[in-house]
Amino acid sequence: MDLREGTGFTDDFRRQLELLMQLRRDVRRFKRDAIDEAAFMRCLDLIQLAPSVGLSEPWRVIRVKSDSARAAALKNFEAANADALAGYSGDKSETYASLKLSGMRDAPEQIAIYCDDGTEQGSGLGAATMPEMRRYSVVAAIMLFWLGLRAEGLGLGWVSILDPAQMNRDLDVPPQWKLIGYFCVGYPERYSDTPELQQVGWEDRRGTVPVETR
Amino acid sequence: MDLREGTGFTDDFRRQLELLMQLRRDVRRFKRDAIDEAAFMRCLDLIQLAPSVGLSEPWRVIRVKSDSARAAALKNFEAANADALAGYSGDKSETYASLKLSGMRDAPEQIAIYCDDGTEQGSGLGAATMPEMRRYSVVAAIMLFWLGLRAEGLGLGWVSILDPAQMNRDLDVPPQWKLIGYFCVGYPERYSDTPELQQVGWEDRRGTVPVETR
Repeated sequence: MDLREGTGFTDDFRRQLELLMQLRRDVRRFKRDAIDEAAFMRCLDLIQLAPSVGLSEPWRVIRVKSDSARAAALKNFEAANADALAGYSGDKSETYASLKLSGMRDAPEQIAIYCDDGTEQGSGLGAATMPEMRRYSVVAAIMLFWLGLRAEGLGLGWVSILDPAQMNRDLDVPPQWKLIGYFCVGYPERYSDTPELQQVGWEDRRGTVPVETR
Repeated sequence: MDLREGTGFTDDFRRQLELLMQLRRDVRRFKRDAIDEAAFMRCLDLIQLAPSVGLSEPWRVIRVKSDSARAAALKNFEAANADALAGYSGDKSETYASLKLSGMRDAPEQIAIYCDDGTEQGSGLGAATMPEMRRYSVVAAIMLFWLGLRAEGLGLGWVSILDPAQMNRDLDVPPQWKLIGYFCVGYPERYSDTPELQQVGWEDRRGTVPVETR
């Protein structure tokens, strides 16, 4: 490919890329099989290719491996999920109770991803009026990781039903680190082009992108 | 491809995907040529394939087309950029002053992307303890849009050096909308695999992903 031209991507590649995006799911049902460590590390390395505000690279990854750290994370999720359930009533409460919202009991790899809000890398460029840009940079990195995993046949599940302050204590992270998410990784029980929340009738997709003009 | 197997992506596709991520840049130098509307809309449509917390799809797009709206956005950036420059001293101040941090004078397409923090879609699932998940969903969508643009030979520049409150007034958006970013889109003056901030010596990339284990 000629970098100066930028035209080296083909229609076939663009179709495959769109298909990859269509097949990227938030996975909550994992096989317990160990995953290929080399493939996992290749995907983690994609994080470095993400955009970051001022080149601050504020992403920080914690591999959660010990039984005690995993048990604390699971307890955290279960408490937050019970609280969330208590906030629904009627049909919505029944549906919520039936949902499987994390694969933490089965996923062979689990990581917490943080943003270092206190990093001096990048000297604050681009983050003066919108300091949340550092966190957005970490989300950008997570998307590259996620697409890379799916291209390897691996699934990722993003768990946000958590008390972040409790997780920070359990994982003993520096005070300026902000939790972006807790992630389960492994081979999915099955692949699909339809989000599980849509399959079970929790919510439908809109089908269009809302665009206005000024 | 057999969706049940999920193994349909080839080594060649994974190499092209990594190359796409390597060549995705934050672009500030655009040709003024109009871009292909169909390609632009195909990329905007990729937003629908993004993950969103609880299937809330909180992304809202405003195409900034009028001279008055563009002039207001440019004025906003220039004021915020002058304020930011005043925060640096010495060599860093000199380097900052020499940076080109937005392509707003040239980019043929410009959009503001918002998060509707007040949306009822998704019924709040996954966002009780971490309401910022809605904003992260919008960032996830922006990444799919960005990769899609680059695969079409188009560049995107993310402008965050802005007063969000002023932009909300200028674009007259609902009060519960949160600005995620202002984006320039067009054909880049040139393609590169190296971030411009690295090329000009503002900051270097670390070269590894910081990973700890618990």
